[in-house]
This record gives sequence, structure tokens and C-alpha cells, in this order.
Amino acid sequence: MKFQIQRDRLVDGVNDVIKAVSSRTAIPILSGIKITAHDEGITLTGSDSDISIESFIPKEEDGKEIVNVEQTGGIVLQAKFFESIVKKLPLDTVEIEVHSHLQTVIRSGKSEFNLNGQDVSEYPRLPEIEEDSVLKIPTNLLKTMIRQTVFAVSASETRPILTGVNWTVEDGMLNCVATDSHRLAMRKAPINGGNGEPYKAVIPGKSLNELNKILDDTADETEIVMTENQVLFRAKHVLFFSRLLEGNYPDTSRLVPSESKTEMTIGGKDFLQAIDRASLLAREERNNVVKLHISEEGGVQISSNTPEIGKVVEEVQSDATTGEELTISFSAKYMMDALKVLEGAETNIQFTGAMRPFVLRPTGDDSILQLITPVRTY
Amino acid sequence: MKFQIQRDRLVDGVNDVIKAVSSRTAIPILSGIKITAHDEGITLTGSDSDISIESFIPKEEDGKEIVNVEQTGGIVLQAKFFESIVKKLPLDTVEIEVHSHLQTVIRSGKSEFNLNGQDVSEYPRLPEIEEDSVLKIPTNLLKTMIRQTVFAVSASETRPILTGVNWTVEDGMLNCVATDSHRLAMRKAPINGGNGEPYKAVIPGKSLNELNKILDDTADETEIVMTENQVLFRAKHVLFFSRLLEGNYPDTSRLVPSESKTEMTIGGKDFLQAIDRASLLAREERNNVVKLHISEEGGVQISSNTPEIGKVVEEVQSDATTGEELTISFSAKYMMDALKVLEGAETNIQFTGAMRPFVLRPTGDDSILQLITPVRTY
Repeated sequence: MKFQIQRDRLVDGVNDVIKAVSSRTAIPILSGIKITAHDEGITLTGSDSDISIESFIPKEEDGKEIVNVEQTGGIVLQAKFFESIVKKLPLDTVEIEVHSHLQTVIRSGKSEFNLNGQDVSEYPRLPEIEEDSVLKIPTNLLKTMIRQTVFAVSASETRPILTGVNWTVEDGMLNCVATDSHRLAMRKAPINGGNGEPYKAVIPGKSLNELNKILDDTADETEIVMTENQVLFRAKHVLFFSRLLEGNYPDTSRLVPSESKTEMTIGGKDFLQAIDRASLLAREERNNVVKLHISEEGGVQISSNTPEIGKVVEEVQSDATTGEELTISFSAKYMMDALKVLEGAETNIQFTGAMRPFVLRPTGDDSILQLITPVRTY
Repeated sequence: MKFQIQRDRLVDGVNDVIKAVSSRTAIPILSGIKITAHDEGITLTGSDSDISIESFIPKEEDGKEIVNVEQTGGIVLQAKFFESIVKKLPLDTVEIEVHSHLQTVIRSGKSEFNLNGQDVSEYPRLPEIEEDSVLKIPTNLLKTMIRQTVFAVSASETRPILTGVNWTVEDGMLNCVATDSHRLAMRKAPINGGNGEPYKAVIPGKSLNELNKILDDTADETEIVMTENQVLFRAKHVLFFSRLLEGNYPDTSRLVPSESKTEMTIGGKDFLQAIDRASLLAREERNNVVKLHISEEGGVQISSNTPEIGKVVEEVQSDATTGEELTISFSAKYMMDALKVLEGAETNIQFTGAMRPFVLRPTGDDSILQLITPVRTY
């Protein structure tokens, strides 16, 4: 294998695939990056066997040469060293050449590295995915949907299925739901493609977080192929594979209350800041629980009190309140997570009593829903 | 105590004094910030008993009112809570008022905090310093001198005196020296003021790092008062006190070789980058030792070799080399620290053999000196 490549393109590719590489891997060769030079250009691969990422660097783009392959072939190089080397090389172009005994020379200007490589044939194969049908969604919408749900997955492995986000596709709608059993986040949006069949998949939260880092914020479509136990995302020059979580995701549709006893409409940004301040004096070890009071006259107050430190009271300007007087306590962290997703929009909150989960939605928009279970404070 | 204050000025003051506050303090009241309201304005104080910082916020500046003191007095408030509260308050102005039982109300718009305060009379007094003579130096020069020496102090407490920087003032020159016994950094510059007497002080590296964060990068002068066991730095609106280290600083003047057997002049920036790359394949646990070879013909090569990983060779363009052929090994980290201080300037390096310390100076400038002890590698 021997090729010359534009260094910035190599750095971009390494930055993508290294997100799948874990330094703590049971399969030693997976601590490396697979590099293959072929007739179309260079392909880089990183994997931790749950997530696999493949980045393709074409020989030329827009009539400009990016890669010159002198001899095809492949090698696996230690990800950590390869990454820091390519980032620090002195010139804009790099030459990589494999000599005998897997010795790999990386050359740029008067800098010459000689790395011990590993045999490319020992690198695990990527999952094979049959592309009988492909779903398509604008990449920036996909990123938003990930961001609006993935934070609510469970951080605990006691119920592994809850560490994933439940994706279902039906009648041209993609519906994403995450819950850690204390709160729930839902987002839905239209999706293109597919063969008319319904799809479902529980995608690990970790995979979606890494995917979100790799995808560019563009309106170009990302292609999605879902199979029994794998999902493939295909964006420009990047393939992202993730295994799916096994097991049945709980039916969350019945968690959302259908009626409400108290309702309030509020500016999301001011409310977020008031909750943030009120949480300053709440105990961290108890999830920063704060208290919300809606008076019969429609006044809204947030407060918290830790006797050793002090107390705080925030009066909040509500656009409208209806229904019963209410005093309810909840995790300030969960409330702030939910409000951040709503991005400061005017927000409608529906309560059905101090002990029942309550629901946040942007006013006049039912494509997003956030549900939070209150905390008992007696 | 009762006053109203511009919030941004209060935040600035808290940001300064909190640098002296340690959460792990043997004296509980020192986890607080002392606030006093007096006829001239507001004074904030933070201290960990080694370092004390006082920030003054005047009643008005440039004809604009900053503070309105309704009632003078003082209180001590938990630094951690007070800091996060003032940063997040909703309006541009804040009112702070002490009620009975040290209850302190912090109010901004519809946000109201009630903090348990501590009695200001229990807060330790700042060191009293007799200002019989004051030294003066431009603040940006002071910051540069700190940066160019403090990195070389010892991180180990085995010889406590080496955790400080040795400052001496004689004949209108301030001389700063730091060494961890493996390398040494020296910087000198003219200083104004004083009463003609020589001064000396060993200032803890930690104090100088904190001082450097607080000082603005301005040509305005900072005043310095040195006493037997304290040093005071006075900049606009800020007083910074530090205790001094006790004991005699070793005589470092004889460490610097007076002759050289091999000499090289080199571009500091390219050399730094080449060392950085060569260090990538050197063992971290051994301070990333790299090897420098100067051939009889004047060629300069940096290399490192870790058999399990690979090797690297860097050819470096030298502006001039004279004297004997040389192969020498040293810590890449120490070399990079020294080269960073020289800020990419053309650098002259003088060697007196593979086992003797060598000296770096910017070409034609003897106000800065960096000395590094080589490493045996057989």
C-alpha cells in the first residue's frame, strides 16, 4: 500500500472514525484504525464492535486531486498514535507506505514516522446489511430529533432497554421516544422512503450521541437502513453502523395523561432561568428538587429551601394559567433538560395533580412532548 | 448593611477574590467571601490564609454610579453559593441587605435569595504591611515574567523552597529564577521604585499563577511591596497578598555553564513542532525522552524509538551549528516548556557535552535563560 493524501482530509476522516474506537477493548485490533487504499480512494474504519464508522476519502472532488494511490492495499494502525501524528505533521500532504513486516512509514516534509502496523485481514468485518429499503431524512432534522430525545435515556443498566431510544416508523412518520422511567421525551417528524412497512428499532443512546457528533448540520438527506439487529446511517462519505438493543421497549403511550386539572403557558427562556436559579440552593444529592406553586389567582412561584444554606423565591410571569391551585415538586435538572429542548419557545404545561406526571409541549405544536414525574417532598 | 450595585461589576469582583477561596479549608469562615459596604464603595475579600485577595468596587467611576450604599456594614457569605447566584441573577442591578440574625437578602427583579451569613468580625484580618518602599513594574511585563519562570518550579514538596520562584531586586533589576533541579528558568527586567536597598523573596508558584489570572494585560504599573514574610501586589482596584516561602533559595548562578563545546542557532517555532512530533512515540512515563543529534557537517536530527510502537526521525533546519559533534537525550516536555517561553524567536542553544546541562537563550537577548539537564539513556 502506498498513497499520498491531503492532510486536512485525512485528519477529518480520522476525527470521524476515531469516535468509534475505544481504548478499552477486548479485541486488541479494534484499538486501531483500518486504512485501505483502493481504486476509488481511501477508506478509514473504526469500531468498538457496538458502533462501526467508515469514512471514505475520494481520489478527487470538484476536479481537485485529494488522494494519489500508487499501490492499493491496507493496514491497521494504532488509533491513538495515528491520530496525533497526522494532526501534527508539518506539511499539507502526507505519504503513507507499508513496507515488509507491516512496517508503515508516514512521511511529511522532513518528518518520518515508522509505525508497527497490524494485518488488515485480522480486522473484523463490518456487519452486512441488506438494503431492501432505505429511509431518508434531512440531516439537520435528524440531529435535532436525536438531541431532543437522547438526553432522557436511562444512565443505569438495570433495565438495559431503557438506555436506548425507541424509534418507530409508521405511515411516513418517524417517532422517537426515550425514558428513564422518571421522565420521558418524545419527538416525531415525517420521514421519506421505506417500502410502506412499519419499522421499529431501539438504538443505544451512546450510538446516537456519537452519530450526532459526526453528522454535519446540513439539509442534505441522511439515508437510514434498519434491520433486525443493526441500523446503518449513510451521510456524505460516512457510514455509521450501530447494533440495536434487544428486547421489547415498554409501551409508553399510556403514560401520557389525557386530561389536565391545572394548565399554564409560560415563556420557556425566563422559566428556564428561574428554575436554574431556584435550583442553586436545592440539594444536589436529591436532584435539586424545587417547588412550583400556582395560586388560584394565577400567580406562579418557584422556590427551594435548604435550612443550612438559605432559601430562594422566584416569581414567574405566566402568559396564562387555568384550573385548580397547585403545589408540586420536581427535579430542577429534569425540568431544565426538558425546557432546553423546547429552545425558549412559549411552553404549555399540563398538570393532573401534585402526584401525577405532567406534560410540557411548545404551544400549538404536538410534534414534541416532554413528560416529568413529580417528587414527593413530605 | 444595605446597598445596590451594578451586577457585572459585582461579578468581576467575585471572580477575582474567589481565586483565593479554597473549598477545603481548615478555617470554615474562609470558605466565604467577606463583603463590606463603606463610604467609598464595596470591598470584597477572599483568602485561603496563604493568598488573600481584596477587590474594591468604587461608588462611582467616570461619573457613572456603580454602587449605592444605603447602610454601611459587612457580612460573610458562602463563596460557592454567592458566586453562582450573582452570575445568574436576572437584572443588571442587585440589592444586598443584611437583616437580623445575619440573614442576608439578595434581590434582583422578581428573584429573591435569603442566605445564612456569617459574622464579619470573625473573618481573619489581612496581613498588615508597612509600605516603607514600593516597587513598580508595568503589569504586562510582570505577567510575562511570571509566565516565563513559574512553570519551572518543583511540583514536589520534598524541597519546599523549590515550589517557589526566587525574586531578587538589585540595582534596579528584578531577577526571577525557578528550578525543579532538573531544569531552570530565569528572566530579568528593569524595575522602578524601591529605596535602593536589595530585596529578596521566594514567592509560591501557586500564588504567582493566581496573580497572573487576576492581573489585566495592561501597560499600567502594578505596585509591589515586599516584607519579611509577605508580598503585596497592588493593581487597579485589586490587592493581592501572598505569604513567602521560608528558607534559603539555593545559589543557582553557578549552575549555568560558562563555556560551550557545541552551539546551534535554530528557529524556535519549527524546532518546537519537531520536538512535539518526536515526543509522540516516546514513552510518557519517562518524560517523553527524545534524542538530538548534531553531526559534524552541521545536520540536526531529532529522534525517538519505542520498539513496541515505532520510531520517528525529524530533520531540523538549523541556522548555524558550530563545535563538536553531539548526541544528547532530554525530556521533550522540558524542551517544549522552554521553547514556548521563547515564543518562537530564533534561539541559541549551547551544549557542553552529552551529560552536562545545556542553555537556551533567544539570539542576542540575555534577559531570558532556560537551562535543561539531559537524561542518560544507556
